[in-house]
Amino acid sequence: MTSNPTWVLKRFPEGMPGPDDFSLEHRDPPVAKPGELVVRTLWLSVDPYMRARLSPAKNYAAGQKIGEMMRGGGVGEVVASESPLFQPGDIIQADDFGWQPVTTVAAKTAIRLDPASAPVQTSLGCLGMPGLSAYFALLHVGRPKEGETVLISAASGAVGQIAGQIARIKGFDPVAVAGSDAKIDWCRSIGYRTGINHRTAGDLIEAIARACPSGVDVFMDNTAGPIHDAAMLNLNTFGRIVVVGTVALADRFDQPDIGPRFLRRILVARARIEGFLLDDFEAQYAEARSQLTRWYREGLLEAREDVAEGIEAAPHAFIRMLKGENFGKQLVKV
Amino acid sequence: MTSNPTWVLKRFPEGMPGPDDFSLEHRDPPVAKPGELVVRTLWLSVDPYMRARLSPAKNYAAGQKIGEMMRGGGVGEVVASESPLFQPGDIIQADDFGWQPVTTVAAKTAIRLDPASAPVQTSLGCLGMPGLSAYFALLHVGRPKEGETVLISAASGAVGQIAGQIARIKGFDPVAVAGSDAKIDWCRSIGYRTGINHRTAGDLIEAIARACPSGVDVFMDNTAGPIHDAAMLNLNTFGRIVVVGTVALADRFDQPDIGPRFLRRILVARARIEGFLLDDFEAQYAEARSQLTRWYREGLLEAREDVAEGIEAAPHAFIRMLKGENFGKQLVKV
Repeated sequence: MTSNPTWVLKRFPEGMPGPDDFSLEHRDPPVAKPGELVVRTLWLSVDPYMRARLSPAKNYAAGQKIGEMMRGGGVGEVVASESPLFQPGDIIQADDFGWQPVTTVAAKTAIRLDPASAPVQTSLGCLGMPGLSAYFALLHVGRPKEGETVLISAASGAVGQIAGQIARIKGFDPVAVAGSDAKIDWCRSIGYRTGINHRTAGDLIEAIARACPSGVDVFMDNTAGPIHDAAMLNLNTFGRIVVVGTVALADRFDQPDIGPRFLRRILVARARIEGFLLDDFEAQYAEARSQLTRWYREGLLEAREDVAEGIEAAPHAFIRMLKGENFGKQLVKV
Repeated sequence: MTSNPTWVLKRFPEGMPGPDDFSLEHRDPPVAKPGELVVRTLWLSVDPYMRARLSPAKNYAAGQKIGEMMRGGGVGEVVASESPLFQPGDIIQADDFGWQPVTTVAAKTAIRLDPASAPVQTSLGCLGMPGLSAYFALLHVGRPKEGETVLISAASGAVGQIAGQIARIKGFDPVAVAGSDAKIDWCRSIGYRTGINHRTAGDLIEAIARACPSGVDVFMDNTAGPIHDAAMLNLNTFGRIVVVGTVALADRFDQPDIGPRFLRRILVARARIEGFLLDDFEAQYAEARSQLTRWYREGLLEAREDVAEGIEAAPHAFIRMLKGENFGKQLVKV
């Protein structure tokens, strides 16, 4: 029996997770119980929401316990099936892959992929959770009108890159905020009108004002932190803020986020701030997925991936994504 | 010609306004120009929104200049009319009374009152701007469902007292936050299920948790400040916060409001925060006013007033309202 190197949570991170918060254990490959599949992991996804699971505090995602295997979205090939739904050789996507080369997945949570339709890892990116998040957060919560300025933070990230392109397709005016000039250049190439490198822009409030001369109508907030604050000060009357992620707080996860509040501004602008979780839109996944797939196959959606190689790289990929060092959707190719 | 003591703005207040920010000048009674009415002032209204006008900063309400007469809502009797719309003897309400015993009002902004229908000063309270604010902020923005818990700050104030009673009429579960035990007792008597005296409650987060055992579904925020923060930490999934007023910030009006932000909580709870200004609902005033009047005449709406006597008392009434020392809708009887 070959070894199956498996990442487990060693301790709860304090602030920004580090490599020492995880340990690689050599386990035996798992065996499927009834209703389960044994899957050879091809791709793992690391996503901001996973930070919230690494905390003893109550949170929206089921928490991860110390000593437990790390889990997240993945794509793999079925090698053994204890379910009539799948056969060996099927390529599947599921949200609950272990961070290990061979893992088990509950058959009822798996989705069969058609490798001829799109590269299978797009099911973890533009055609998966990040793409669906971009679609619903922008169109169903932010609800921009034609020509309105849509400011998007983490604009080249998994969610932001799709949101920007949907905004372009729909005739909105997307403006990027990202952490390097290369990211901003790429954002322009996929349809953002312009962008702001928040690491070099100096006064972010002024930089957003220059990039958005008509103000910000919809702000898709993937980060929280100083970008949020600067966006609030450029918000138009009846502006909308969709809180999709708070990755800028990943380094002080269990501490209160202290800073300026904007209640007077919210009142005066009649702004609307609304939190977003993808799960609430499950009933409409199929419709959105088929729209995203259509755009993708028409060449209207470009998907940039940042690929770390090998199961050993999984924590590293997770941490660099939390730090914003990734460029595109962060994946691990196993 | 009799003297007409008139309050003018002497200087922009720093933080909480004080009596020395205003001065009483003896002016001649005004004469009506075409389209204007000369009105004997019966009642003046002092309202939180007026604080924002006493600032050199750009704001939503037209600013007041140094040396200019103070202005606000009022009720009075027409003594001379340069408009075919009104006759001497008519009782009118308008939003732009001067703080003086005899003032002029643009006829097109005046509303004729029927003293037989309700006491005329209710047009400044439960049947006027505060009542309409309560109606639209609660029903059109907060949109509680039957049985949901509605937490209301400044609960015995001009807006809060009407919001609590509408919530009771509509079958919601209203809970008061106010600044004295007497106010809380009165809130209970008009239909609030229970209440919290925020000046004596100690840990406000726990006090709200005890008063709202099923959590807070809708928070009607008339104050901002620490009550807002404690409400956020008791907010249910899909909770809604309507930002109606920020009177708790009146003492640091031109400074940033620094404190905990709740973006992670907003995300996790999929909360919605929305700013409210009454003006946006102008097209529906008539409908709301007739509903409020119906409830009032059926005895379902009680209106408590806090009356300061005499034009000399106007700044004092304004300041005590900003400090939350009033008990009920603050008026000045001239």
